Amino acid sequence: MKIKVPLKKANRLVNHGPVILVSSFYKGRPNICTVAWNMPVDFDPPKVACVIGDDNYSFECIKNTGEFVINIPGKSLLKKVIQCGSVSGKNIDKFKEFGLTPIAASKVKPPLIKECVAHLECKLLRKDLAVEYNIFLAEILCAWAEKSFFKNNRLLVEKSGAKTIHHLGARFFAFPGNVIEVK
Amino acid sequence: MKIKVPLKKANRLVNHGPVILVSSFYKGRPNICTVAWNMPVDFDPPKVACVIGDDNYSFECIKNTGEFVINIPGKSLLKKVIQCGSVSGKNIDKFKEFGLTPIAASKVKPPLIKECVAHLECKLLRKDLAVEYNIFLAEILCAWAEKSFFKNNRLLVEKSGAKTIHHLGARFFAFPGNVIEVK
Repeated sequence: MKIKVPLKKANRLVNHGPVILVSSFYKGRPNICTVAWNMPVDFDPPKVACVIGDDNYSFECIKNTGEFVINIPGKSLLKKVIQCGSVSGKNIDKFKEFGLTPIAASKVKPPLIKECVAHLECKLLRKDLAVEYNIFLAEILCAWAEKSFFKNNRLLVEKSGAKTIHHLGARFFAFPGNVIEVK
Repeated sequence: MKIKVPLKKANRLVNHGPVILVSSFYKGRPNICTVAWNMPVDFDPPKVACVIGDDNYSFECIKNTGEFVINIPGKSLLKKVIQCGSVSGKNIDKFKEFGLTPIAASKVKPPLIKECVAHLECKLLRKDLAVEYNIFLAEILCAWAEKSFFKNNRLLVEKSGAKTIHHLGARFFAFPGNVIEVK
């Protein structure tokens, strides 16, 4: 079950640098792209930025609609994450192609990807930065996390179902091992 | 021993979302701040972005000089990383205070932090984005990594000396466990 994450804590879903799946909705259908380059930008209102190359169909989708969803996949989705990053969505529906389930977002038109651990519904703030640097700077309008993997206002990335994916470059990926609380 | 990393592979040092120590040099002395929010932005020329709050002394240092170094600390530096993020460098020298060693960079005035695993020498590209969003977008001029922890053009974050620090929010930190190569 997905629960709402307080907006001021929304950034914590990507604070530790995971690979994300960005979903968009353009010309009547959804699309997905895999993105390693992303970071929080502000707490209140919460902002986030990610980089999507201008040779991706998602670049066009989001530049033209101003809306996207950041979905945080767990390790079990690694194969689909790589698949989503390997083909263009210009002529295929990646949800159908790779067996992912779109569910309605609450504030934007692009769907959440049900199989992911957490989600940020985003509204683009600066189209010019997308055009000049491929940077999609956005406000977070709503945030969601799987109830069993979000406690004490953080993702439980040490749990096997919530281990996030961290891209080291090329075909190398790291996953969280231990988590510590510094007193 | 530190070796130069090919500039086109420089982004890989932060591709997986580690906490960084940002060093600067202003008014005759160096400063350090701890930053969780950072991401690569481009490959060639390589660009990177990080977020430094405008209430930090480092914000002023870098806005006024246009230069900084991204240093990537390993897990053994966690205590110093938290200390560097807990006090202002306006009136103290954090290198001396926390027992860190400045060594000369090759292209910029801010020093590298010797105890870190890797380094990116950076030149600020857009002062206006720092002022408006606290985003420091920069070109990477030179990149370094500890020879024993950089192989096949990636950081060996699965090795105990090169485990990077990933901030989950509050006082929670994750560290890389296993790394896999997807064939």
